[in-house]
Amino acid sequence: MEQKKNIRPSSDEPALHGANSRLVQQEEQRQDLGFGTKLNDAYSRLVNKNGSVNINRVNERFWDRINLYNRLITMSWWHFLGWVLVFYFVVNGVFAGTYLLVGAENLQSSVNGEPYGSFWKAFFFSSQTMTTVGYGHIAPVNFLSSIVAAMESMIGLLSFALVTGLLYGRFSRPLAHVRFSKQSVFSPYLDVNAWMFRVVNNRANQLIDVEMEVSLSRLETKPDGTRYRRYHGLKLERNKVAFFPTNWTLVHPITETSPLYGCTPEELAESDAEFLILFRAMDDTFSQQVHSRTSYRYDEIQWGYKFVPMFDSAQHGMVALDLDKLDDTAPAELN
Amino acid sequence: MEQKKNIRPSSDEPALHGANSRLVQQEEQRQDLGFGTKLNDAYSRLVNKNGSVNINRVNERFWDRINLYNRLITMSWWHFLGWVLVFYFVVNGVFAGTYLLVGAENLQSSVNGEPYGSFWKAFFFSSQTMTTVGYGHIAPVNFLSSIVAAMESMIGLLSFALVTGLLYGRFSRPLAHVRFSKQSVFSPYLDVNAWMFRVVNNRANQLIDVEMEVSLSRLETKPDGTRYRRYHGLKLERNKVAFFPTNWTLVHPITETSPLYGCTPEELAESDAEFLILFRAMDDTFSQQVHSRTSYRYDEIQWGYKFVPMFDSAQHGMVALDLDKLDDTAPAELN
Amino acid sequence: MEQKKNIRPSSDEPALHGANSRLVQQEEQRQDLGFGTKLNDAYSRLVNKNGSVNINRVNERFWDRINLYNRLITMSWWHFLGWVLVFYFVVNGVFAGTYLLVGAENLQSSVNGEPYGSFWKAFFFSSQTMTTVGYGHIAPVNFLSSIVAAMESMIGLLSFALVTGLLYGRFSRPLAHVRFSKQSVFSPYLDVNAWMFRVVNNRANQLIDVEMEVSLSRLETKPDGTRYRRYHGLKLERNKVAFFPTNWTLVHPITETSPLYGCTPEELAESDAEFLILFRAMDDTFSQQVHSRTSYRYDEIQWGYKFVPMFDSAQHGMVALDLDKLDDTAPAELN
Amino acid sequence: MEQKKNIRPSSDEPALHGANSRLVQQEEQRQDLGFGTKLNDAYSRLVNKNGSVNINRVNERFWDRINLYNRLITMSWWHFLGWVLVFYFVVNGVFAGTYLLVGAENLQSSVNGEPYGSFWKAFFFSSQTMTTVGYGHIAPVNFLSSIVAAMESMIGLLSFALVTGLLYGRFSRPLAHVRFSKQSVFSPYLDVNAWMFRVVNNRANQLIDVEMEVSLSRLETKPDGTRYRRYHGLKLERNKVAFFPTNWTLVHPITETSPLYGCTPEELAESDAEFLILFRAMDDTFSQQVHSRTSYRYDEIQWGYKFVPMFDSAQHGMVALDLDKLDDTAPAELN
Repeated sequence: MEQKKNIRPSSDEPALHGANSRLVQQEEQRQDLGFGTKLNDAYSRLVNKNGSVNINRVNERFWDRINLYNRLITMSWWHFLGWVLVFYFVVNGVFAGTYLLVGAENLQSSVNGEPYGSFWKAFFFSSQTMTTVGYGHIAPVNFLSSIVAAMESMIGLLSFALVTGLLYGRFSRPLAHVRFSKQSVFSPYLDVNAWMFRVVNNRANQLIDVEMEVSLSRLETKPDGTRYRRYHGLKLERNKVAFFPTNWTLVHPITETSPLYGCTPEELAESDAEFLILFRAMDDTFSQQVHSRTSYRYDEIQWGYKFVPMFDSAQHGMVALDLDKLDDTAPAELN
Repeated sequence: MEQKKNIRPSSDEPALHGANSRLVQQEEQRQDLGFGTKLNDAYSRLVNKNGSVNINRVNERFWDRINLYNRLITMSWWHFLGWVLVFYFVVNGVFAGTYLLVGAENLQSSVNGEPYGSFWKAFFFSSQTMTTVGYGHIAPVNFLSSIVAAMESMIGLLSFALVTGLLYGRFSRPLAHVRFSKQSVFSPYLDVNAWMFRVVNNRANQLIDVEMEVSLSRLETKPDGTRYRRYHGLKLERNKVAFFPTNWTLVHPITETSPLYGCTPEELAESDAEFLILFRAMDDTFSQQVHSRTSYRYDEIQWGYKFVPMFDSAQHGMVALDLDKLDDTAPAELN
Repeated sequence: MEQKKNIRPSSDEPALHGANSRLVQQEEQRQDLGFGTKLNDAYSRLVNKNGSVNINRVNERFWDRINLYNRLITMSWWHFLGWVLVFYFVVNGVFAGTYLLVGAENLQSSVNGEPYGSFWKAFFFSSQTMTTVGYGHIAPVNFLSSIVAAMESMIGLLSFALVTGLLYGRFSRPLAHVRFSKQSVFSPYLDVNAWMFRVVNNRANQLIDVEMEVSLSRLETKPDGTRYRRYHGLKLERNKVAFFPTNWTLVHPITETSPLYGCTPEELAESDAEFLILFRAMDDTFSQQVHSRTSYRYDEIQWGYKFVPMFDSAQHGMVALDLDKLDDTAPAELN
Repeated sequence: MEQKKNIRPSSDEPALHGANSRLVQQEEQRQDLGFGTKLNDAYSRLVNKNGSVNINRVNERFWDRINLYNRLITMSWWHFLGWVLVFYFVVNGVFAGTYLLVGAENLQSSVNGEPYGSFWKAFFFSSQTMTTVGYGHIAPVNFLSSIVAAMESMIGLLSFALVTGLLYGRFSRPLAHVRFSKQSVFSPYLDVNAWMFRVVNNRANQLIDVEMEVSLSRLETKPDGTRYRRYHGLKLERNKVAFFPTNWTLVHPITETSPLYGCTPEELAESDAEFLILFRAMDDTFSQQVHSRTSYRYDEIQWGYKFVPMFDSAQHGMVALDLDKLDDTAPAELN
């Protein structure tokens, strides 16, 4: 509110404002995937092969950095089970310590003698309380140990509820079990050439309504000489299939309208070109949407190669898809 | 990068490139459901009656082949409960063996005498630990048996969490409880003919926003004589309804624009014709999308038959839908 | 395949087939919500006030009729809790009987004397096993009672898993907490008239992206004199709002293009007119879609009435919405 | 049905009805976000900064006012855990009272002496029953205490099921972890000016398919001098991005077609202008939609300021996004 100024232009500038709106219109037609135009100095890839994004973040808040739920869902199974075990032993250790503080003699034991020390007695009592097993051969006898046990059994129920929720969430999480070819190719296609990559459904019978979106990101030069990152949506010969039982070769034909028309490998490398891939499908088991992302950089293109078919029709009259042939290519004369 | 070649065409070929783009455009207009054009030698159906797809897969990875979650969710209830029982007994057996290794005498028993052998004592102790019942009339008394029991109760909680998650997942899974007619028919329709099939909602009051997509897949011959599989979307008289309380007869009128116009039964058989059906709806209980798929082959068409109405209006003045009449047809003179 | 007939029309009927396609086109433009055109004899409403549909079903399969999951989710809380209690007591009763069969003396009791009969001892032991409480003051001592207890604790865990899943499913089920006005009105609107109804969001701050679809269903007469049910989509002055914090009056203006143009109350009654309402929105808490349906019949229209505003602006300078005024109408002179 | 009147206009008024439909069309083109046109006396904001809506509600039903599930899901963690603790102690207290009523002597205790009073014995027994720990060193010995315990263990299982469902529901709830800039700005943009605000993704790698919708709500004057609230959708230079790894500056260029064209700060204040923001995205972890809402009022606009870039490219050659710079602005000469 500091600089109050009428933003209505003076009426003697109609020509300028015709020009204005043209500039605005140009800007509106610019395609931007959300990375902005200024990422032009890094020469690092925007999207990693696994679909994550290459941005460093400063001053992120603690819980945002930790991102606990997301991390627990996406970490590997070994890490997850390891953390559960650590959590279980640490919490039991802490409660064992608490029972010792209250006094180990307040845990009445029906076991003859005490074959293990009082820490372990408290530890085992704690584990039996936390998991609600409660054999009762060790039991709290005074007020303090009883109230601690009452709290621990509640905390145990809630903690295991979270852990088991996470366990099932991990197990049931809808994922796009697809594999992209490691390389893309520049192949002959009909009587032009085309840029192609291939994707295969790793699992049978699960993905339907599959959709693919491909963009080319590269550095271009403005008339005034400054370089900026520009994005081009690439038209695919086919970007949607209803079924995805086998493999799918995505084809971008290099016609006159393609931003790749007349491009040399050297030009692609020089402009830091990167092909960004967005994959969307519907997982049929629970009708949930799944996504996948990946990218091909200029140095992941094989020029003058084509993909070798993955079908092997010799097997007992039934068509067989060999998943190991996904990355197989062969030289092919470009048009 | 091996074969560096400028893909910009020499400038003296403008005519060719006009032709090029026409070929590309043709290819773009080709409809493909995701099966590709090469499945022309098998003469087996693409989509089975239950909606699964007929593709053999080679070199699938272990976890992809197992597809554990999907399998546990989609197997029959008897199989699922059988596996749960097997799992329960095997895990308890393994833990019983572990307690025997540690020494059966370390499971203190308050039972007078031991009416069953020490294996069964260990087994029952294991089951009481795993389910967290923990009566305590059998209890671990030394360090090793206590630590094994602590682990087992945790593992038991996590395992049962998975099983109960699966149980509820199976129970609450949104399914399209619809039944397609076994046969489709070629019937007279207004003053043309039409290909029709019928679908019924097995359960009352659940599906809304129902949508149907039908494609014809058949072998056709290119000008050069090679045969390839081609796909045609079939225009339906109505492909969407907001409510689905009763039955629904899907009608594809055979007008001049239909790929079936003028087709004979023999031609359909010869071209290995298959009608692929995609069904989408919204389950109203939890507002979840449900899908169903099926197909009709050329030998599942009744020529010159029509569907008999499923409504029986005689019942107490209220309209009654007889679900058993779904497959009933009667001869009808074609136009 | 019985009646093989070439469906290609003889080539001397081109004029007829032009006519053909016109009939087909007419049929395609017919709007049908999924009830079909033949429900014209019943004179009962298609959609009940609570959104359910009036169709009687014959020969429904057992599990389809039961529709267990849907029923358990949608029954009232009192019914649900009642069934849980019944289930709990019946299953415990059955297991108590089993323990008696095995022999009540095999349930060792540390209780001095037996203050209740052996059935209740078995019953309480069963409940302690099924809920996995397992005090242990009653415990199984022979093989058979132990194995039955091992099975019961497993069955108990799985049953309670289902029940608790259902409990939380019911609790977290996304519902459109909206209330429709009991009556609709024919009111003056600008300088025409309009058919209006009103809906209110019962709860604050939850529904966004709200959408309404209204159809008129009525009996009409074909040129040949047969009566059939026809559906008209009704154009609303506004059928979508991004926020739904208050009430919303839905307005269908009666202009020349409206199927209600020039209609009298008698005509509406005679044609068994029914206005079908579909409501869709997004519940903001978990971003889930919710639906609601209702209908107004010809006898639920107040002619020459208008809705009274629900806002009461006198309260402390803040706008107050009085939810009890939803059904309030006042006479208004029609244009 | 009281005022039966033919709504068909008399046929000598065709001109009027041409006028009629023009009024109706105007009304249809009016944009309304769901707040209506009458909220013009309050001069309070429609949408609060946190996205909630400013409406007072009268005569709300009890369960609608409580809105239990929604409240338990959206309250702070401290409140939630506090309520769980209160619930746990109150329920145990109530059951302890019940056991005392039945007779504390019916809870047999194997503890030597009773180091705490009989209330606490009953309380601890209750907590051991409710959590199904069931040590058994306190156990029910008569019929009444046993049946109460059987009920409590069932109620305990169901209650903890709800609590743990809520716990995991809270934990796994998909939220738009985004932060909007506190102020919006009027900045120079190309060769016009623009209204801008900025939003940042607080967490890395989670939101895709991000969409923004902006509306201007302000009081305007009808030709007859009455004031009413009007809504204008604001055209954004870009309202959709596929990736959202960093920050995003939303730009509404003030061209001739903008409702803000030629507006002064005083006019905005006088017309109670408010910019309403709707944010939609897809959370990638579980492919769930997330929403966010906010608004900027006329007094949250900085005139003649621009946003300072949030990127800091100096860090080790990798682009770094400084989340603390979200609100940083600098003066800029308007065009």
